[in-house]
Amino acid sequence: MGDPAGIGPEVVVKAVRDRRVTQVCHPLVFGSYHIIFSAAKKFLKKAKIRKIVWAEDVRDSKDSINVLACTKLDHTKIKTGRITKLSGRMAADSVFCATQFALSDQIDAMVTAPLSKKGLHLAGYNFPGHTELLAYLTSTRNYAMMFVAVRSPLLTVDSRLSTKKYKVALVTTHLPLSAVPQTLSKKKILEKLMVTQKALQGYFSVKKPKIGVCALNPHCGEEGILGSEEKKIIIPAIKTAQQKGIKARGPFSSDTIFSPKISQEFDCILAMYHDQGLIPLKMRGLGEAVNVTIGLPIIRTSPDFGTALDIAGKGIADPKGMINAILLAAQMVKKNKNR
Amino acid sequence: MGDPAGIGPEVVVKAVRDRRVTQVCHPLVFGSYHIIFSAAKKFLKKAKIRKIVWAEDVRDSKDSINVLACTKLDHTKIKTGRITKLSGRMAADSVFCATQFALSDQIDAMVTAPLSKKGLHLAGYNFPGHTELLAYLTSTRNYAMMFVAVRSPLLTVDSRLSTKKYKVALVTTHLPLSAVPQTLSKKKILEKLMVTQKALQGYFSVKKPKIGVCALNPHCGEEGILGSEEKKIIIPAIKTAQQKGIKARGPFSSDTIFSPKISQEFDCILAMYHDQGLIPLKMRGLGEAVNVTIGLPIIRTSPDFGTALDIAGKGIADPKGMINAILLAAQMVKKNKNR
Repeated sequence: MGDPAGIGPEVVVKAVRDRRVTQVCHPLVFGSYHIIFSAAKKFLKKAKIRKIVWAEDVRDSKDSINVLACTKLDHTKIKTGRITKLSGRMAADSVFCATQFALSDQIDAMVTAPLSKKGLHLAGYNFPGHTELLAYLTSTRNYAMMFVAVRSPLLTVDSRLSTKKYKVALVTTHLPLSAVPQTLSKKKILEKLMVTQKALQGYFSVKKPKIGVCALNPHCGEEGILGSEEKKIIIPAIKTAQQKGIKARGPFSSDTIFSPKISQEFDCILAMYHDQGLIPLKMRGLGEAVNVTIGLPIIRTSPDFGTALDIAGKGIADPKGMINAILLAAQMVKKNKNR
Repeated sequence: MGDPAGIGPEVVVKAVRDRRVTQVCHPLVFGSYHIIFSAAKKFLKKAKIRKIVWAEDVRDSKDSINVLACTKLDHTKIKTGRITKLSGRMAADSVFCATQFALSDQIDAMVTAPLSKKGLHLAGYNFPGHTELLAYLTSTRNYAMMFVAVRSPLLTVDSRLSTKKYKVALVTTHLPLSAVPQTLSKKKILEKLMVTQKALQGYFSVKKPKIGVCALNPHCGEEGILGSEEKKIIIPAIKTAQQKGIKARGPFSSDTIFSPKISQEFDCILAMYHDQGLIPLKMRGLGEAVNVTIGLPIIRTSPDFGTALDIAGKGIADPKGMINAILLAAQMVKKNKNR
């Protein structure tokens, strides 16, 4: 459901009734029954809502929005556009519950609607976001954020994933830029390369993934004149990865590797910091990239937008990103089962 | 001419004989007569070469490659693909001479072919590149690198510049990433905003330029959680600029501002560091962006590629970027004269 004060409930109800979605999966909404009920009444022309207790019951309930009610907090106190301790707790409750269902294989994958870092903090959960929270809940030490670019128009059902699509994984995520250089280490880069390779093999059917690695500094550090991290950290990490059989290449200066000609040589590009990887992705337009947490024991995707408080409740939120995230999750499930 | 060991001479002779170029200006090559002569023989089907002494003589010599010989160093010792003290000195000599001609209005603009930082250093000139060397030679304290994206196919003669084109200016340029945060200051950002506004008005006929300003940190620093430079440095700089009548807005997180929807709101985007500005530009493909040094008393452009030693002398260097740089310089001259 995401944070009920944001656009989460709206994009969720719009997305789960989209035909492209219902054709490939049985969506089940984790959250507050009342919030989802209100959102459906407000944002859809017509919709049946059904409370579900057992996940498998969704199969018999194709015409409804199926809700697994997993929060008993008071929905009447939620104010659209206002992140509070309560809204943060509701969002967290939904994540906790869905994660348990995913870990116990009652659901095949989990798609998260936007929540607010501030809400999480107010509710007492000190995680920078979904990614770190999920890593904690699933006891995962080695994970990474990966973004999968989805071509506009929307993913057509069951296509595209076999083709080389633009993917970016990050070594560091939500950090001040000044903290990035000191946070990088050979070990960290190596771990991200390993988890990236595994995800590409498992969820994207790439047998021998080619991974391009970004430099940290402009012009790849220009022989050390513009920074030493390439020589000291990144190149040694790539070499060790190659010895372990990972087809990693680089470092490439980041204004080179994302050019159309070079980026298509790779199945995935590993960026050293958030904006380095996200600038190229977002240039393709919002809602075009799906965020995937790789390395978790469960499949988890999410759209690449936030709670968008300024437009929450207005009925104008575009569910495209949410639909893409669901379709991608469905495809990952299929690839993973076919292995 | 650029560094004679690189692709400079090749792209220069190819570009100055291109009809799109000769239709809009009188090109004059500054460099070694012998190097240019050899390049023309090697890379062009047929070409007349003429040694010029007075710049205005180019008007009477439209069918030739006109060379202003400005180096007496021994051209026979230049080895293609090998940057040396000698090649660096030849490149520098050409820049010195052309700069003098530009400062004394004997030429309207200067377009530089790629030289090597290493060559400059070997020759005893400790500048990171053309930009800083030119600032020194023209006694310019406040200048900036600006990149102007040129749509493919090539600029058509005298079009496009009036439309809003994608332009990026940089606050910091060739620095290790770790040095970027400490190098930023309110004063520096303000200076770059001023020089950017002036350039947009003078050379691009934008009366009231709108300038979008990037954040340094991901998610704009997220209220200080992901870095404080936005609050301490960037926002105060923007406010002061606004008080001075500059239409600056921001900071925007850098993965947002370069999206098609947002970037088109601005006449120019000011990036805080090299890759932040260059990743989006280079994604459009090499040779599509022209580098302009703004703030100088002369007009100076250059292509966005380097000496490309690996392909030097092979005849396969693409002059597209050089042609774009010349055409843009010619348009800037015209706009500047029409003011």
